Amino acid sequence: MRAVDIIMKKRGNPGNPGGSELSRQEIEFLVSGYVRGEIPEYQVSAWLMSVYFNGMSFEETGLLTDVMLKSGSVIDLSGIQGPFVDKHSTGGVGDKISLPLAPIVAACGVKVPMMSGRALGHTGGTLDKLESITGYRTALSTQDFRSYIEKTGFAMTGQTAEIVPADRLLYALRDVTGTVESVPLITASILSKKVAEGADALVFDVKCGSGAFMKTREDAEKLAKSLVGTGQAMGKRVVVLITNMNEPLGRMVGNFLEIEESMDILEGKGPADTTALTNAFAAWMIVMGGKAATFDEGLALCTHAVRSGKAMELFMENVRLQGGNPEQLRAERGVRRSPHHFTLTAAQDGWIDSIDAFTAGLAGVYLGVGRNRTDEAVCPEAGLILHKKRGERISAGEPIMDVFGKNSGCLDSARALLEKAVRYTDRKPEEETLIYAEITD
Amino acid sequence: MRAVDIIMKKRGNPGNPGGSELSRQEIEFLVSGYVRGEIPEYQVSAWLMSVYFNGMSFEETGLLTDVMLKSGSVIDLSGIQGPFVDKHSTGGVGDKISLPLAPIVAACGVKVPMMSGRALGHTGGTLDKLESITGYRTALSTQDFRSYIEKTGFAMTGQTAEIVPADRLLYALRDVTGTVESVPLITASILSKKVAEGADALVFDVKCGSGAFMKTREDAEKLAKSLVGTGQAMGKRVVVLITNMNEPLGRMVGNFLEIEESMDILEGKGPADTTALTNAFAAWMIVMGGKAATFDEGLALCTHAVRSGKAMELFMENVRLQGGNPEQLRAERGVRRSPHHFTLTAAQDGWIDSIDAFTAGLAGVYLGVGRNRTDEAVCPEAGLILHKKRGERISAGEPIMDVFGKNSGCLDSARALLEKAVRYTDRKPEEETLIYAEITD
Repeated sequence: MRAVDIIMKKRGNPGNPGGSELSRQEIEFLVSGYVRGEIPEYQVSAWLMSVYFNGMSFEETGLLTDVMLKSGSVIDLSGIQGPFVDKHSTGGVGDKISLPLAPIVAACGVKVPMMSGRALGHTGGTLDKLESITGYRTALSTQDFRSYIEKTGFAMTGQTAEIVPADRLLYALRDVTGTVESVPLITASILSKKVAEGADALVFDVKCGSGAFMKTREDAEKLAKSLVGTGQAMGKRVVVLITNMNEPLGRMVGNFLEIEESMDILEGKGPADTTALTNAFAAWMIVMGGKAATFDEGLALCTHAVRSGKAMELFMENVRLQGGNPEQLRAERGVRRSPHHFTLTAAQDGWIDSIDAFTAGLAGVYLGVGRNRTDEAVCPEAGLILHKKRGERISAGEPIMDVFGKNSGCLDSARALLEKAVRYTDRKPEEETLIYAEITD
Repeated sequence: MRAVDIIMKKRGNPGNPGGSELSRQEIEFLVSGYVRGEIPEYQVSAWLMSVYFNGMSFEETGLLTDVMLKSGSVIDLSGIQGPFVDKHSTGGVGDKISLPLAPIVAACGVKVPMMSGRALGHTGGTLDKLESITGYRTALSTQDFRSYIEKTGFAMTGQTAEIVPADRLLYALRDVTGTVESVPLITASILSKKVAEGADALVFDVKCGSGAFMKTREDAEKLAKSLVGTGQAMGKRVVVLITNMNEPLGRMVGNFLEIEESMDILEGKGPADTTALTNAFAAWMIVMGGKAATFDEGLALCTHAVRSGKAMELFMENVRLQGGNPEQLRAERGVRRSPHHFTLTAAQDGWIDSIDAFTAGLAGVYLGVGRNRTDEAVCPEAGLILHKKRGERISAGEPIMDVFGKNSGCLDSARALLEKAVRYTDRKPEEETLIYAEITD
């Protein structure tokens, strides 16, 4: 077997311009060989570019996913009573859904072995939000991860270096060779990590809009269908919701601020959009875990998990298990704010037409909510509290949002961006759709 | 400027799937950076693959050609009276056209600064043929190259390491990344070397058929149009003939054997096909060099150059200048043959339908005419003398060809291939076209 022949098989030729599907052996030869340092980067990047152009069938993407996940260790959940269902979001602004979701689903009897990522660019990261809880540890040993799942039905950790090393290597190469934006490569990257966690079924939040990686419905649907189809090819049930990411989700954007909003949701008093999204994902996960027969039954179960206080109890128990202090957390709620702040007020009378998620997310990077490089620190107390969002009436001078920065020096840059992020209109705009589509197998 | 942005510009995106043309600065950044070791191979190979898929305009190919040729030194012919016109063939079996062509054109007042290559795979190489003349030197200093052109109107040399180093580096990378078969990349590779020689105008023989790199008319025409269009974009006049390479050209295949056939052509007694091709290229070069107003006038001039003995005189003078011994050459003509030989005879009565050029070329590699690796030696005395070709009547047992090998061990493998190369038919086949098309600007 020669790498160049595999590249040319994928690349195709004038008589077969779309190329051919690679076999498991061929994908293994390239990808495992690359991880072992036997196949040079220049051959892998040429293959990645031919995948960018010619795509991959779901079966082929499934083979790639499987080869990638087998490049490292896989979390072993055997011995723990399932079912295991996990959720992944392609990333957005104000997207704290995973935080209330995990305890709600766990309260309904479905275990959630959750591995999350960090903030990068304009998007937030679940790990950074969790770490804003003083003492909270996100680098769990497999033993602790298993034991916490056994105790409270869920656990929250970061990816270790042992999980899917092929993805880290391939992603680093894709990043510098113009091959990031390939649906099958994105699919294999996402799925390999999620399947390596040991979940039986998966729900995905494919965000779509200005604050999302996928800017258009068309792109979001391609990724959604690829996730579902590839999951199917691998024998994993996958459900994808395509959701709106034109405006920041909820009322809070920031690390500790989003912990607070998550607690609001767990108490049944969260904003309408984040509550609705949490419930939709929870209901699907409960159905996929076999604890409800229908979506509506799943919804009823998760409403009960919130009303009964069970979900909040599990959340607090997880905070305690993972090193946080529930008492301190309760005490900080609503008061732990950066001293460097200002209030953005309305420039005119009328309605808010939109608060652009991407621009607000970029402002968040200045404020310290997010970061541009993976080695930068974030500020737990930075962020936005949105008093007004699309469709709300506003008078000139009325507060739109409170803005908290990591220091006083960052506020002007953030203000300039946030002023640009807010658009006004003279008449009440139509309500935007929150969940665009459900893609199921 | 970042390499990844240049790659993505060529790669395109869902809104612009064909990508965009790169500027001279962008091509320079990638290619010159690669030659200097600043741009890593994995970025260059990703760019090459996006060029494979999205192509390049003639203007862009011209920019790439120019950047490539400026990566090394360019032959300076200033001070010598032009015009300078050169010819290049994409390679075939029995293709000795360059050898009689150069002295014929030179005899008509057009200078030919010819740089040639070596045999590789099933195709022969002009340098190997010339070196079969005892003492003949093909590694000329620039000074000798210039001085011989001044004296006899042409000179024959190999490419030095200083000529277009970018092409050697890019070709080595293309070879292992599945990016050889790209018309603009092939065009830039061929043109950069030819333009670096200092010619004002160029003729190309794009061979088409089983023994050629381009197997189909469609592929050959794409390359031909790209050579002409790119030449035009660079301000160089280029004419391409697309010619038949289904059967070996002429009656002789081999290194010294092809020197002999070249001398036959120079004496006006060569085979019909090689004579016709030599005349066609010569006439075009004479027209492009401004020494004839029309193709027919060019043809008349080159017929005169042969009949007068002037072309043969220049050939012999070149042999002497480049280290050979004209007397010895004359003495060896017709008698210098390998002692390891056999005669392939007809298996049946009928007509020869074809002698497959590719298979005959492969047999030549076994015999020692060609080589599989650039570091292998060739045998001057090996080769084929074809007594019969397509369209000729044959009786069972009648000689089809005499076969000469570098040793006795290679003859059986060559015989097996050559038996496969010969196809018979029961009725006289139609004559094949020799020159399929002329592509001019």
